[in-house]
Amino acid sequence: MKIAIAGYGNLGRGVEAAVRKTPDMELVAVFSRRDPTSVKTRTGVPVYKMEDAVKMKDDIDVVILCGGSATDLPEQTPALAEHFNVVDSFDTHAKIPQHFANVDAACKKSGKVGIISIGWDPGLFSLNRLLGQAVLPDGKDYTFWGKGVSQGHSDAIRRIKGVKDARQYTIPVDEAVAKVRNGENPELTTREKHTRECFVVAEEGADLAAIENEIKTMPNYFADYDTTVHFISEEELKRDHSGIPHGGMVLRSGLTGLENENKHLIEFKLTLDSNPEFTSSVLVAYARAAYRLSKEGVSGCKTILDIAPAYIHPQSLDELRRTIL
Amino acid sequence: MKIAIAGYGNLGRGVEAAVRKTPDMELVAVFSRRDPTSVKTRTGVPVYKMEDAVKMKDDIDVVILCGGSATDLPEQTPALAEHFNVVDSFDTHAKIPQHFANVDAACKKSGKVGIISIGWDPGLFSLNRLLGQAVLPDGKDYTFWGKGVSQGHSDAIRRIKGVKDARQYTIPVDEAVAKVRNGENPELTTREKHTRECFVVAEEGADLAAIENEIKTMPNYFADYDTTVHFISEEELKRDHSGIPHGGMVLRSGLTGLENENKHLIEFKLTLDSNPEFTSSVLVAYARAAYRLSKEGVSGCKTILDIAPAYIHPQSLDELRRTIL
Repeated sequence: MKIAIAGYGNLGRGVEAAVRKTPDMELVAVFSRRDPTSVKTRTGVPVYKMEDAVKMKDDIDVVILCGGSATDLPEQTPALAEHFNVVDSFDTHAKIPQHFANVDAACKKSGKVGIISIGWDPGLFSLNRLLGQAVLPDGKDYTFWGKGVSQGHSDAIRRIKGVKDARQYTIPVDEAVAKVRNGENPELTTREKHTRECFVVAEEGADLAAIENEIKTMPNYFADYDTTVHFISEEELKRDHSGIPHGGMVLRSGLTGLENENKHLIEFKLTLDSNPEFTSSVLVAYARAAYRLSKEGVSGCKTILDIAPAYIHPQSLDELRRTIL
Repeated sequence: MKIAIAGYGNLGRGVEAAVRKTPDMELVAVFSRRDPTSVKTRTGVPVYKMEDAVKMKDDIDVVILCGGSATDLPEQTPALAEHFNVVDSFDTHAKIPQHFANVDAACKKSGKVGIISIGWDPGLFSLNRLLGQAVLPDGKDYTFWGKGVSQGHSDAIRRIKGVKDARQYTIPVDEAVAKVRNGENPELTTREKHTRECFVVAEEGADLAAIENEIKTMPNYFADYDTTVHFISEEELKRDHSGIPHGGMVLRSGLTGLENENKHLIEFKLTLDSNPEFTSSVLVAYARAAYRLSKEGVSGCKTILDIAPAYIHPQSLDELRRTIL
């Protein structure tokens, strides 16, 4: 399979590394909106201008989109789906139906396969929400995120006057997780589910109390959470907080039996050193599905929910039934 | 959807209860090899002789087979697949390819859908082994079972002279699980992964030391494990060990990055009060898939690996993309 990357940031570099773990794929191109001569890939894969992608349409089996969900993917995924099989990690949950419709229309025109919203949430977490609900219809599901770095929240802090750099961790509240695991089916408020911990490097002479107050009262981002703010030095931030770990869990707690006499708990948990590299690994697995579906003559937009799992594994169905079923 | 059960033991009673949790299904018949007048269902569903099933072929959408893997399912699943869409929980891993071939041949003849080896292992655990391997190709997977009751091992103890009743628990070794979670990718022997704990009711005057020795040295079942034997009274067994809890976990630990610099852990864990009722709940969810695939004109044998997850959830794909993706 010949793979191309569109967008060479953290996610694109993750895909570059993930493709090297798969003997059945080869990375042949990176498309960038930047001047290609200014972009040097880590493995020497050639870089081309985004607008030149179409010229290579016969040399590429699947394009993996690695741009952001706010402005890049809503335009790029449908545009590239007019010429290529594509996979993206579009993660604005509320806008998925619209994005799906746009990509589906492009794919129907081109006869290509577009797989959207791949990663871990949306992605593997969505799949586990589906499984939990289907298997235990009389139950409740819970998603907890972290402990991990939220890029959006870190960025929000960096925009505050007097802040030089910042890193924000989202942390599940242990008591809330324990209640769920215990089958109590609690109703949990935003504040009861997660706390937010911020490590902030302030500019010299900045008003620390004002910064802390602005963080803690920021609507949507922090006001609804118990938030802790630590001021640290730039060196400490580099030394202790340069990674991009993340993770979380999806739990489904449910009852069975004619008299609801039996409790069950399904738990899916991720502990990730690198959020972008793990997301990239899921994207690469679903690029295999895009390629195979396309070979079978399928076209249109798909998600993790409507793709049979075997499409993402390199082995044949015969082998899988023998080795892992 | 009109559902029938073939075989009315623990699993069949579990299906009877699980169908009542699903508004889109109705249980219309139980088929039994026993004299139907001697079988009373818990919800009043009528019981028919197994050999009369064929007469009802036009009134039933899916038959869920609830017999044992040793002798019932190898015969019954292919036989019923000649007339019905079927789902079974065939769990003899080594014989799955042969069972698949038999059911597939029957389904191809009848134009029906047969879904085999549904439950949690094989079943949801298999699915998670597939996901882990596909997403983290440079890694290792581990399956731990328990803490839970193994019927096979309990039966093996009951066959020993001087034993009146017994219950055997399979228990994962905490240190082994901790090593895996820690990303150490250990090579684990059978003994290092699980211990076995036995609660035995002896006949009056039986030679306890001889029973304990026979258990601990029993090949395949106990000899390769650290086994503990407790002799208890019949009352204690009834009071403390009458449930059929089980569970376990599938872990995938893997590396990403050009220099393998990042570790990741995927963990899927089940904690079940009732092993048969949970297995039944998975069977019922996949009965929905059998019905829908059949309506689409699909025929042949399928497993959890080659069925798109959305087929098992009552909501439409449009709704699922809106609500859980």
